Amino acid sequence: MEENVPIRAELIAIGTELLLGTNVDTNSAWISEHLAAIGVGVYLHTSVGDNHARIVDTLRAALERADVVLVTGGLGPTQDDITREAIAEVMGVSMFRDPAQEARIRELFERRKREMPLNNLKQADRPEGSSIIESPFGTAPGLICPVGDKGKVIYAMPGVPREMKVMMESGVLPDLISRSGGVNAVIASRTLRTWGVSESRIAEMVEPRIAALDDAGNPTIAFLAKASEGIFAHGATGEDAQKLLEAEENELRSILGDLVFGTDDIRMEDAVGDLLRKREWTIGVAESVTGGMIASRLTNVLGASDWLRGGVVSYASDVKFDVLDVPEGPVVTPEAAIAMADGVRSVLKTDVGLSVTGVAGPTEQEGQPVGTVYVGIARPDTETISVSLSLAGDRQNVRDLAAINALNELRLRLS
Amino acid sequence: MEENVPIRAELIAIGTELLLGTNVDTNSAWISEHLAAIGVGVYLHTSVGDNHARIVDTLRAALERADVVLVTGGLGPTQDDITREAIAEVMGVSMFRDPAQEARIRELFERRKREMPLNNLKQADRPEGSSIIESPFGTAPGLICPVGDKGKVIYAMPGVPREMKVMMESGVLPDLISRSGGVNAVIASRTLRTWGVSESRIAEMVEPRIAALDDAGNPTIAFLAKASEGIFAHGATGEDAQKLLEAEENELRSILGDLVFGTDDIRMEDAVGDLLRKREWTIGVAESVTGGMIASRLTNVLGASDWLRGGVVSYASDVKFDVLDVPEGPVVTPEAAIAMADGVRSVLKTDVGLSVTGVAGPTEQEGQPVGTVYVGIARPDTETISVSLSLAGDRQNVRDLAAINALNELRLRLS
Repeated sequence: MEENVPIRAELIAIGTELLLGTNVDTNSAWISEHLAAIGVGVYLHTSVGDNHARIVDTLRAALERADVVLVTGGLGPTQDDITREAIAEVMGVSMFRDPAQEARIRELFERRKREMPLNNLKQADRPEGSSIIESPFGTAPGLICPVGDKGKVIYAMPGVPREMKVMMESGVLPDLISRSGGVNAVIASRTLRTWGVSESRIAEMVEPRIAALDDAGNPTIAFLAKASEGIFAHGATGEDAQKLLEAEENELRSILGDLVFGTDDIRMEDAVGDLLRKREWTIGVAESVTGGMIASRLTNVLGASDWLRGGVVSYASDVKFDVLDVPEGPVVTPEAAIAMADGVRSVLKTDVGLSVTGVAGPTEQEGQPVGTVYVGIARPDTETISVSLSLAGDRQNVRDLAAINALNELRLRLS
Repeated sequence: MEENVPIRAELIAIGTELLLGTNVDTNSAWISEHLAAIGVGVYLHTSVGDNHARIVDTLRAALERADVVLVTGGLGPTQDDITREAIAEVMGVSMFRDPAQEARIRELFERRKREMPLNNLKQADRPEGSSIIESPFGTAPGLICPVGDKGKVIYAMPGVPREMKVMMESGVLPDLISRSGGVNAVIASRTLRTWGVSESRIAEMVEPRIAALDDAGNPTIAFLAKASEGIFAHGATGEDAQKLLEAEENELRSILGDLVFGTDDIRMEDAVGDLLRKREWTIGVAESVTGGMIASRLTNVLGASDWLRGGVVSYASDVKFDVLDVPEGPVVTPEAAIAMADGVRSVLKTDVGLSVTGVAGPTEQEGQPVGTVYVGIARPDTETISVSLSLAGDRQNVRDLAAINALNELRLRLS
């Protein structure tokens, strides 16, 4: 491979358990993230079963398209573990038993005072011309396997995430960085997380910016569809990447305004927690329709005990009346939301009270349709207010949306 | 496809976010499990980015090898959503705008009184010759797309797991079952859900039964590895399937006893709700370490208002002292759990009080290591008790396990 030409990678996860659905392949996402961080682009993930012919086909197809192929799984001692043999066939070489690995395995069993099943020595076999990535766990080593005369490489690692991660960091990533010509080809990325309008509305707002960027090609923008939506920007080439991201983030923020609640791993509850911490305010939550979801999201935040005192889940109406001092009467009203927010603020002795009452369905309540939700916000410096929402979806939907929207309404009023 | 010949499937997950590693593909495992249950074998999973040419290549390669291809992702309204166009190219047909879908989308925005961004109408476009799997969420429909003259099919579903799952059950699985030999090949399945011992211990207990069944071949048993573990039994051939399942369920229940908390979609909170309803008891929850997770799980249950009155999230210690009347002092103790359970029972005027206090980490508290959790159970007919748990994992793990174990301890004592 030439210097500074971006490396193309493909990933192959090997194991019939993946195709049966008993295991979720979390390795490929982890590996992809770490390859992106050193500027290696991933073009395809494939999962294939423990079948020699199919593994060989998959490896060959991947090597047609990509410069390097990272394989996980199939390095253990059982009959199903056939990754080594498949790679040897693709390399066009034979297998040999590595005496150093054989000695290591024998010594391992002796030290544990256990008899060694003979098939364990399989793990000392490897293709001619391969080199070793040592396992710190005493299990099968990883392999670096050059293929053909165009500088292409297969990396083979165990499927156990803990073992794979160590070998990525100790063996695969350093090898890839040296092949790519040092640390020059850095790709940095940043996610902007937004809440308040639909994904398609965000797309429309950002469209002119995407069109403007398309000509330059660096940075580029991609959309992520998640529970908490985000906009993805990435930049290329060395020292400039971070600066490009910085500039692009400012550009996008000027378009999106307070729809942006955070970057990268910041969740809505983190954003709210940060704002409370800045004001040195504590919070208590009164939840009816969300039944504890908001409180449990806030307790996700590390260090929440600095500003979260707790909450009251007032699912039954008379818990609202008795515990939160809500006036008897209808409970799906702006007035009830306000009384709940004031009530929890007073019962839990907090600065801020946040409340949610509404109808999750499946049927209407107090003549209000499913999806009607009122949020109450009580705070020390101004009058308690209510915000009314009309949410779409089934019971679970309405509850999820009520929780994130309540947090978002509070965020908008604290920032 | 001929009748009763096993169908070969491949799965393709579409989305650049998968190749960047920002999203883990959990859909493929779920789909594979459900295909296995109806006897459809999965041969390959592929993840590919939002790139027209690469999606087309991947679809063509998959259709070379497989009878049916299940695609997830790329059905949204943004420019990145190009799955529909790629499928049309592979089918060799043009796209058309489905008037019924267009009307549905317009009506949806009108009902929500929101302006419709024009690119939303993209979701009404589909390849000539395709048919629709309706979305119950009002989002883009799934597609059933026949390809060529050999009876091959592409199924396209959204990448959002919740939407994909509904479409699998309402559209894809029934279509596959009818293709695999019509209504005669009825495959019924039942999941037994267990809690309390490890998956490998369950495997050990059930092993003799699996061995006994292996000879007959109907029903068979398969394991599902999930957050809430289960044992999966399925039977084939028409009228007998349900009877076989019934008998097998009884057999397995006699082996597993009260480790089984429910069948199929019954969640732990449903099991607890059923038991409370039978006794005509109400419940209140006092949560510290779980911060509202138990209350919010209980409010998941349809009709929870019959037996759930609410909860107190006593995250700060003095909320425990002030609101729940817990004696001042250490709060991660069996005595505090008992006082919390009694306190919430009295404050919310319920029959049962369930409490959880403990240490989720990242650091120890009151000299107790991370993972120490005490559950308190107060009830009208006997003394309040505490149960101590020692849970493994990180902060999120400990909280999740504390919630489900607390519910399970209550279940065991109510049944």
